[in-house]
Amino acid sequence: MAAESENSNCNAWAARDPSGVLSPYSFNRRAVQSNDVALKIIYCGVCYADVAWTRNVLNDSKYPLVPGHEIAGVVTQVGADVKGFKVGDHVGVGTYVNSCRDCENCNSSLENHCPKAVYTFNGIDTDGTVTMGGYSTHIVVHARYCFQIPDGYPLAKAAPLLCAGITVYTPMMRHNMNQPGKSLGVIGLGGLGHMAVKFGKAFGLKVTVFSTSESKRDEAINLLGADNFVISSDTQQMESLKNSLHFIVDTASGDHPFDPFLSLLKAGGVMTVVGSPSEIKMQPASLILGARTLSGSLVGGTKDIQEMVNFCAANKIYPKIEVIRIDYINEALARLVNRDVKYRFVIDIENSFK
Amino acid sequence: MAAESENSNCNAWAARDPSGVLSPYSFNRRAVQSNDVALKIIYCGVCYADVAWTRNVLNDSKYPLVPGHEIAGVVTQVGADVKGFKVGDHVGVGTYVNSCRDCENCNSSLENHCPKAVYTFNGIDTDGTVTMGGYSTHIVVHARYCFQIPDGYPLAKAAPLLCAGITVYTPMMRHNMNQPGKSLGVIGLGGLGHMAVKFGKAFGLKVTVFSTSESKRDEAINLLGADNFVISSDTQQMESLKNSLHFIVDTASGDHPFDPFLSLLKAGGVMTVVGSPSEIKMQPASLILGARTLSGSLVGGTKDIQEMVNFCAANKIYPKIEVIRIDYINEALARLVNRDVKYRFVIDIENSFK
Repeated sequence: MAAESENSNCNAWAARDPSGVLSPYSFNRRAVQSNDVALKIIYCGVCYADVAWTRNVLNDSKYPLVPGHEIAGVVTQVGADVKGFKVGDHVGVGTYVNSCRDCENCNSSLENHCPKAVYTFNGIDTDGTVTMGGYSTHIVVHARYCFQIPDGYPLAKAAPLLCAGITVYTPMMRHNMNQPGKSLGVIGLGGLGHMAVKFGKAFGLKVTVFSTSESKRDEAINLLGADNFVISSDTQQMESLKNSLHFIVDTASGDHPFDPFLSLLKAGGVMTVVGSPSEIKMQPASLILGARTLSGSLVGGTKDIQEMVNFCAANKIYPKIEVIRIDYINEALARLVNRDVKYRFVIDIENSFK
Repeated sequence: MAAESENSNCNAWAARDPSGVLSPYSFNRRAVQSNDVALKIIYCGVCYADVAWTRNVLNDSKYPLVPGHEIAGVVTQVGADVKGFKVGDHVGVGTYVNSCRDCENCNSSLENHCPKAVYTFNGIDTDGTVTMGGYSTHIVVHARYCFQIPDGYPLAKAAPLLCAGITVYTPMMRHNMNQPGKSLGVIGLGGLGHMAVKFGKAFGLKVTVFSTSESKRDEAINLLGADNFVISSDTQQMESLKNSLHFIVDTASGDHPFDPFLSLLKAGGVMTVVGSPSEIKMQPASLILGARTLSGSLVGGTKDIQEMVNFCAANKIYPKIEVIRIDYINEALARLVNRDVKYRFVIDIENSFK
């Protein structure tokens, strides 16, 4: 941890090993370059990715590891060539902070699928340094990966848009789910699922929430405005919904069968997977007989992100959050693993580091 | 087999039991009703479905069973209320001969997905009779399920369009594969695959054929006009094609892994399954990381069928066929099982029953 004492301009919390326990840490952010924006981080959302990489689930964690890729803050400095940002702007940074800006994907506003995309933490940036995420007091990013948060949109609630929000918004738009009067199923009601319900209602869809837990019924209906709530293990109710849905957004992180959900889709229906099951398996008939589609999605491109943030501001779509201080993060991550959060933890970075 | 002697106006060949052996048979077709078209069958294509149902693969075969759902013929009579058909017209009948005409799917020209769709053979029609297919001298169908074959299009080659053709055309159109300059992979080079190659070239796509058999290389390239040919077990070549294709049409009937093919798709790419593997299994990352789509499809609606036939006529797209007589059908089905056909058997019904 030589970096801490040598040249530190940024305070943070980091995991040091696969125990995943976070503790105070400091390191050096680069100086602002001509195309960069520097921001003071005010809030940072807590995503399941933070658990996965602090605990080295994918065996690629580089410690010390500063997680956090749902960043909301205020611009403190802009590079000489930056347009569209000025000091004081409310801005967000999401799951990636760099890409090649020259490939087919980058040129199609699909920077998230650029082979050289650099994730916001635990990535190797073009200068060879390991990226450090938003559990920290400031960040410097190329302006292309920084997004305006419209005036009046609460910064704390903006944070989860940058990952949870875009993760469900992008496939919903790609598959034309914004058709009023059509029907949407949402599997799972966590950070992603509750945003899918909110987008679904904003799009004018009839929304059915599928959950394994009866305890979520009241909130699904009364707090989030879902039209229907179904316990997915209730085979009778599932049977009665066959061929009834135009779309499904599957946010379930655990393993689950796909055939029972695919069979709920009408002919030509689309189910998009944004969770992280360990395997996807189905009978070919589940796709073929109804000409159904199963699609995956991973966050979204820069154009989509700004569009989504603007859509949320225009339609007053706000994630439900529980604001915490950074010194509660280890408990928060444990609660996240136990699905004990409604629906997103957001760290009050500004006040935590005062 | 009482029906044979009592009241027979139609000569045919039927399977009598799960051995699947076909032999001469005669039965009675209904009289033409007000919305019906009667046609003299001139040719009938041989589809793998004919093998499956004559041999009772799905345990739902009703014997005697007259297969055949790639029917091309000439109109001999039209009902009083029929518009758009007249005696002498060249017409086709495909895989279904009835539907409710009143549901969401029927009203969206997706009659193929109507819950009450009646298949052309081995189906139970609305009058309670078991439908008999095109290995027969004539057929009577509601005009909605009958399609004009433009003048000059060879009737023998029109037959396979009604199943093999529409099976690949519908998903290609649904997923916007008709974009000149984009790239298409076709898995398998049988009755369906060779039509996918032909449509792909007509759409202006760069077509790569994936096969397990080196023996198909020459025909894929030189006869069908594919741009590239890849042995799918060649991991080095498969690796080199990663993220390179916009679309894949998977016509393979046997089991095969999905991850290696999905990985060939670019970000946002679409793979459509029209074959009949016993299971579909993949790593979620194969869909999620590239925001890829896996879709199923089953023949097509009536509007699509007529559009596809017209497209083939306008673009001179002709299936490659081997014309046989009905008394060769048992050998032909055995050869079909052994994939020994280039690329579709078509029975010369007219001359077989003279």
